[in-house]
Amino acid sequence: MENSAAILVIGDEILSGRTQDTNTTTIAKFLTVLGIDLKEVRVVGDVEEEIIAALNALRARYDLVFTTGGIGPTHDDITADAVARAFGVGIGYHPEAYALLEARYPPGEFNDMRKRMARIPHGAALVANTVSGAPGFQLGNVYVMAGVPMVMRAMLEAIEPGLPRGLPVASVAVEAAIPEGAIAPGLAALQKDHKDVAIGSYPFYREGTAAPFGAQLVVRGRDGSAVERAAVALESLIRSLGAAPQRIKSG
Amino acid sequence: MENSAAILVIGDEILSGRTQDTNTTTIAKFLTVLGIDLKEVRVVGDVEEEIIAALNALRARYDLVFTTGGIGPTHDDITADAVARAFGVGIGYHPEAYALLEARYPPGEFNDMRKRMARIPHGAALVANTVSGAPGFQLGNVYVMAGVPMVMRAMLEAIEPGLPRGLPVASVAVEAAIPEGAIAPGLAALQKDHKDVAIGSYPFYREGTAAPFGAQLVVRGRDGSAVERAAVALESLIRSLGAAPQRIKSG
Repeated sequence: MENSAAILVIGDEILSGRTQDTNTTTIAKFLTVLGIDLKEVRVVGDVEEEIIAALNALRARYDLVFTTGGIGPTHDDITADAVARAFGVGIGYHPEAYALLEARYPPGEFNDMRKRMARIPHGAALVANTVSGAPGFQLGNVYVMAGVPMVMRAMLEAIEPGLPRGLPVASVAVEAAIPEGAIAPGLAALQKDHKDVAIGSYPFYREGTAAPFGAQLVVRGRDGSAVERAAVALESLIRSLGAAPQRIKSG
Repeated sequence: MENSAAILVIGDEILSGRTQDTNTTTIAKFLTVLGIDLKEVRVVGDVEEEIIAALNALRARYDLVFTTGGIGPTHDDITADAVARAFGVGIGYHPEAYALLEARYPPGEFNDMRKRMARIPHGAALVANTVSGAPGFQLGNVYVMAGVPMVMRAMLEAIEPGLPRGLPVASVAVEAAIPEGAIAPGLAALQKDHKDVAIGSYPFYREGTAAPFGAQLVVRGRDGSAVERAAVALESLIRSLGAAPQRIKSG
């Protein structure tokens, strides 16, 4: 699979419902722009064996893997150790990470737990953290990032120049005040006629409006002119059903 | 694993970043209340082989699996067929689902695509949809629900009476205006002394406040008095570091 990617979200707080993950959407949009296909996401808790198993499954299958969470200073931050074990390599203080962190703290405050953030698997390259200092790292095809969204975004920016580029997916989104089930037959025919694009349908319900049932119809594909042809055909279909198609901000 | 659960989120729109998944958090909170442990989440696209592989992995490993997405009327809604194939059973119109949907539409509007929503794997039981009619279903330990959050929530309510109950996890959350790295050594010692609970640390940064760096510290466990004992010890630790612990709404 060319330019495929997966995300591994690590943290009990996601699985307990305490924290709403937003990093997946951030990374998904980021990859879409670069033309990298996000194929799968997994969320596991702060359990070393679970992290190792998921990481090894994903890194074997996809070109790139992005992890978030578990690289802070506390006892429940075990991602770096889990990644080292997944790759079968050692782990220890990374001189550059150590120096960088040491310089951040007043004398006496660079305690053993903070030093944990300088523990990097052998052979990994650091990923800069312009927000709070403690770096992420890259090992093989795996990018290990923080879970705090602001820090994660900074790390994505640091990673970006080194990532492969693909042909970005073009997409056109058209909204129609037609119930999804009413446009579904025409949509299925349209999909058959335009096999080089993927047509998705996302229904909505807007209470208190004249035509509350509608759908956002999204045409996606790597060939921009094929996408545009399908979108024009889609707009004709919507008009043939007595509604006015409306192009909306795509995604 | 007793009372373990996984979620399988199905939909290209999550992987493209177009749609922010919120169903995971909703289900996670729902399961926490019931004392069911959510252990893993996976997100896959609208690709039959991917859905089948993920579903078979999860249903073999966990007591309960909840899927969201892909049960509407359009060509990209392929979850029911994928579930049937995963279980190796046939699929066809379910008489009750068919009658229920037929009654919803004016004469002539119950088209073939809408009829797709009455296609249910053989042997499955329907899950009521009080919002928009088209049912979900249960097959073995797998609960198949809609992706639209309002509909998904209604299906969760319909499913609830039939789910096993576990001992809910008790949790106490304490906020402290202490940088995570400063409390980390004491926290690690606390975790060692209280092995019957899990202590999580979630840092925050509040720009423009007097002490912008802080952490929410969460003690979780099935033994409520053990949780309380650890929380009291945690509050002492925070005070010993010169800050005022503050219990906050838990989760």
